[in-house]
Amino acid sequence: MKKYSNKPLVGDLISILVESGLKHVVVSPGSRNAPISYSFVEHPDVTVYSVPDERVAGYMALGMCQMLEAPVAVVCTSGTAAYNYGPAVAEACYQKNPLIILTADRPEEWIAQGEGQTIFQKDIFGKHVLFSAQLNEDHEDKDLRWHNIRRINEAWEICTTQTQGPVHLNIGLREPLYQFTDELPAPMIKRTMQMEHRMTEEQWETLRKTFNSKEKVLIVLTQNGGVSANKYVDQVSRWNNVLTFSETTSNVHATEVVSCIDRFLESLDADQTESLKPDLVVTIGHNIISKKLRRLLRNSEAVHWHVDETDRFLDTFQKLELTIPVTGDEFFNQIAHSTHSSESTYHSHWIEHEKKVKERHARFLETCSYSDMKVFEVLLSQMPEHIDLQMGNSSVVRYIQLYDARPDLRYFGNRGTSGIDGCTSTAIGAAIISQKPTYLISGDIAFFYDSNAFWHDHLPKNFKAIVINNGGGGIFRIIPGPKSTNALDPCFETPHHRTAEHIAKAHQLQYYHVKDLDELQDVLIQFHQATQPSILEIFTPRERNDQVLQDYFSSLK
Amino acid sequence: MKKYSNKPLVGDLISILVESGLKHVVVSPGSRNAPISYSFVEHPDVTVYSVPDERVAGYMALGMCQMLEAPVAVVCTSGTAAYNYGPAVAEACYQKNPLIILTADRPEEWIAQGEGQTIFQKDIFGKHVLFSAQLNEDHEDKDLRWHNIRRINEAWEICTTQTQGPVHLNIGLREPLYQFTDELPAPMIKRTMQMEHRMTEEQWETLRKTFNSKEKVLIVLTQNGGVSANKYVDQVSRWNNVLTFSETTSNVHATEVVSCIDRFLESLDADQTESLKPDLVVTIGHNIISKKLRRLLRNSEAVHWHVDETDRFLDTFQKLELTIPVTGDEFFNQIAHSTHSSESTYHSHWIEHEKKVKERHARFLETCSYSDMKVFEVLLSQMPEHIDLQMGNSSVVRYIQLYDARPDLRYFGNRGTSGIDGCTSTAIGAAIISQKPTYLISGDIAFFYDSNAFWHDHLPKNFKAIVINNGGGGIFRIIPGPKSTNALDPCFETPHHRTAEHIAKAHQLQYYHVKDLDELQDVLIQFHQATQPSILEIFTPRERNDQVLQDYFSSLK
Repeated sequence: MKKYSNKPLVGDLISILVESGLKHVVVSPGSRNAPISYSFVEHPDVTVYSVPDERVAGYMALGMCQMLEAPVAVVCTSGTAAYNYGPAVAEACYQKNPLIILTADRPEEWIAQGEGQTIFQKDIFGKHVLFSAQLNEDHEDKDLRWHNIRRINEAWEICTTQTQGPVHLNIGLREPLYQFTDELPAPMIKRTMQMEHRMTEEQWETLRKTFNSKEKVLIVLTQNGGVSANKYVDQVSRWNNVLTFSETTSNVHATEVVSCIDRFLESLDADQTESLKPDLVVTIGHNIISKKLRRLLRNSEAVHWHVDETDRFLDTFQKLELTIPVTGDEFFNQIAHSTHSSESTYHSHWIEHEKKVKERHARFLETCSYSDMKVFEVLLSQMPEHIDLQMGNSSVVRYIQLYDARPDLRYFGNRGTSGIDGCTSTAIGAAIISQKPTYLISGDIAFFYDSNAFWHDHLPKNFKAIVINNGGGGIFRIIPGPKSTNALDPCFETPHHRTAEHIAKAHQLQYYHVKDLDELQDVLIQFHQATQPSILEIFTPRERNDQVLQDYFSSLK
Repeated sequence: MKKYSNKPLVGDLISILVESGLKHVVVSPGSRNAPISYSFVEHPDVTVYSVPDERVAGYMALGMCQMLEAPVAVVCTSGTAAYNYGPAVAEACYQKNPLIILTADRPEEWIAQGEGQTIFQKDIFGKHVLFSAQLNEDHEDKDLRWHNIRRINEAWEICTTQTQGPVHLNIGLREPLYQFTDELPAPMIKRTMQMEHRMTEEQWETLRKTFNSKEKVLIVLTQNGGVSANKYVDQVSRWNNVLTFSETTSNVHATEVVSCIDRFLESLDADQTESLKPDLVVTIGHNIISKKLRRLLRNSEAVHWHVDETDRFLDTFQKLELTIPVTGDEFFNQIAHSTHSSESTYHSHWIEHEKKVKERHARFLETCSYSDMKVFEVLLSQMPEHIDLQMGNSSVVRYIQLYDARPDLRYFGNRGTSGIDGCTSTAIGAAIISQKPTYLISGDIAFFYDSNAFWHDHLPKNFKAIVINNGGGGIFRIIPGPKSTNALDPCFETPHHRTAEHIAKAHQLQYYHVKDLDELQDVLIQFHQATQPSILEIFTPRERNDQVLQDYFSSLK
């Protein structure tokens, strides 16, 4: 016999969410949330994952959202549990993942009354959620039930329509928590008819004219730009007056684009930098990784168009003139429909330059000594085909931007807020859903930070982690400031002698480690062939990595 | 040469806080917070601890506050880092620890503008801080500097005066972040003259009269009651009409008090329970651990007086009539000054009963088989003298309440919100400051949850951890509900085969483990003698623990 909670609030919650399409729920063990958790477990259409650390649970759910492009719910008990979702909620807010956060709570009147495990959970995520509601229980009160049903529907609709992002329901539950029914209430669905929004042909014609009239148009493609395989990207990117920059996180590939922005910008002298500055910059997607690019555009006279269905006033370069509220695909489809006849040499000049940069890059790496830089070349060139690559923050994702994006890979990273705190958990959540071979490349600090990511029973066989262990906080040797202080050690480097071996052992993962190029070449073959979740730890020379990177940048000039 | 940040905002911040008395700062590595971190490192009067995981850093600082009863600051970079302080901030809010949270941020106008590592940090801790301010930088603007200086002073004063608790300064810093000066600005201190508050003799006389007129007065002493070694506690607790319950967290010991509330209440039949119900209950301190006691008093006709310097309207039993805003010490001092001549047998009757309960307790344990219950008897009776005992949530702290409190020990626990997420980190923070032998007893789930607690270079030699590993989530077998569902495993128990060994190895800690009583007796001697940080893991039988506990409760009747 089924044992759902007999609470109408819990029944309605589950019934409405599942009817709406919810299929995956990550629960963390607890008492107050028990009626929600055990009822989800009973539902035949829901897969439940049990993850004890809520920080991990939040990020795993976020990784699942990344792959599904549909809501995933997390369920926790009352008290500090909810706060542990904070980091993943903030990331979901900026990465626009439809995370449904269900926090159980004591009845509202018992907050701050000396009861155990109560904090101020109502509206706890502040501006990081698109919607937040308090649901209370009272079996007798029909208005309250109506209110709850309406709010649950609202939460679903808000996180799944155009402006995606996390929503929060704080759910006050009374004891007894363990009384059952074998049937859920019929789902009471309320929906808003979604309207088609479109720009007029006249508006597009004006944009096309302006676009074509500019001598230098720089298009920048980044994360969440909403550009799929699109023949017009290739077409537009070849126009005389167009240069397209594409970060790996855009997962857009075309023949005549620059996919390594930092590498490209580092190759320029002052005059070249000046002449690269566009008249018009079009950004598609958010969270540009390249700080150099952001700085260059802030110091330009460019006009900025931002293409984004939902974000308004994202004025990254202080040059914003126009937000075009469509997907990247729609933008390319529309802009491509024009007869293009610019005399500009902007495209050809810089694509020629990019060829030289690629040669310099290749030449440097031929003789590059063992270091982070060299290791990334080996890793990225020898990645199996058609895998998903999850890039850890902070130096890993920057290194990866220095190598041409491989069109057969999909690149992901938590670039919403660029935190190091949940990279592993996110990658595991993504791998569970995609079932594709998924590789995480992580720095040591990010990897240790999220060491609880493996503490559950849901680690999929298709997941592998590569840890670049440079002894801690390598990024702070790359940027110039920290070495000038008297506090490099305590404030920045986190030096340590910790390795990933104990994490691997604690969770019965296959563990490989290497400390030079020959070992790496050998072990990489075994690692790729391994049929179980595995960790490869690559020890690189902390004191040499930053010098190699500086030499690399010099070699590009 | 000293290298302080040359930013007036950072200089004023450090200069004012240190002049005010700040001595301990926990920093987490990062870029945006660098000027604050490296300037604290330079200051001769400040000890800086570097802890990479902000969740751990927050709880360590809280443990330090516990011991110092003075402010400790935490410093983190921008982005999700701040959210990782959330759990410790909530605990500090309810445990009333003066935690000063310094979160670095990008300049305010750059929030949600596509910059890396920005979230909505302003006011991020909501109602969990007593004070929150945004500090911005502008070297030229004198009014802004005045504003910042005022806010920093305000933060210090608010967290150190009567109503203690956490305060938050969100600090927007502009680049460049690495420019130095060898001198801090002179500290600009602003203070409020603190007034003496006192109740009149007339008010006390009224209270004394009421107190003495009651047939049955129950005094409940819990965490943060502000009662020190006080001869009047003993005196008042012997009065005819008084029965005193004292939880371990009160750290109050007197001869004729009941220090094991749950044990005592479990020994009563229905009639006895009825006759125990007081006419007046006086609570001193917050966060009563015993749920049984809370329930009993809610179902009584008692009048409730709550003695607390700061909390108002803490109506835990729905019987609150009067808040008496003084320390527990003051209350006892004043109440004791009366000629007491009640005829009541309330005291003598229940103190006689308590003797019988102690005998039954001892008799049960003589033959008790190996289990959590038995293990706690051995551990608590064989603890070295005069140590600090840090009790993990959730079942550990409940078990410990079943054994007479030892007057030579000091008992601590995160009972503000009773979370499992930072028990180890808190204990380590406390041990760093107290320098006394400090033992943590933790359940397995709480211990694994906080496994990053050891990931830093500050683990003191006086710290030891005992992990009761019952295979996960033992508490859910003790409470009756979970076993009645179809979801005991995924929703509650977190069963696992993980051990603490890998955590010990990863951090070079001495590791001991036992799985029966003989081993425990043997190993305990070595463990107590160990002169370095050590972990003792005690494996207990998951499937038997709950039965033993039920048999124990039955044996008390």
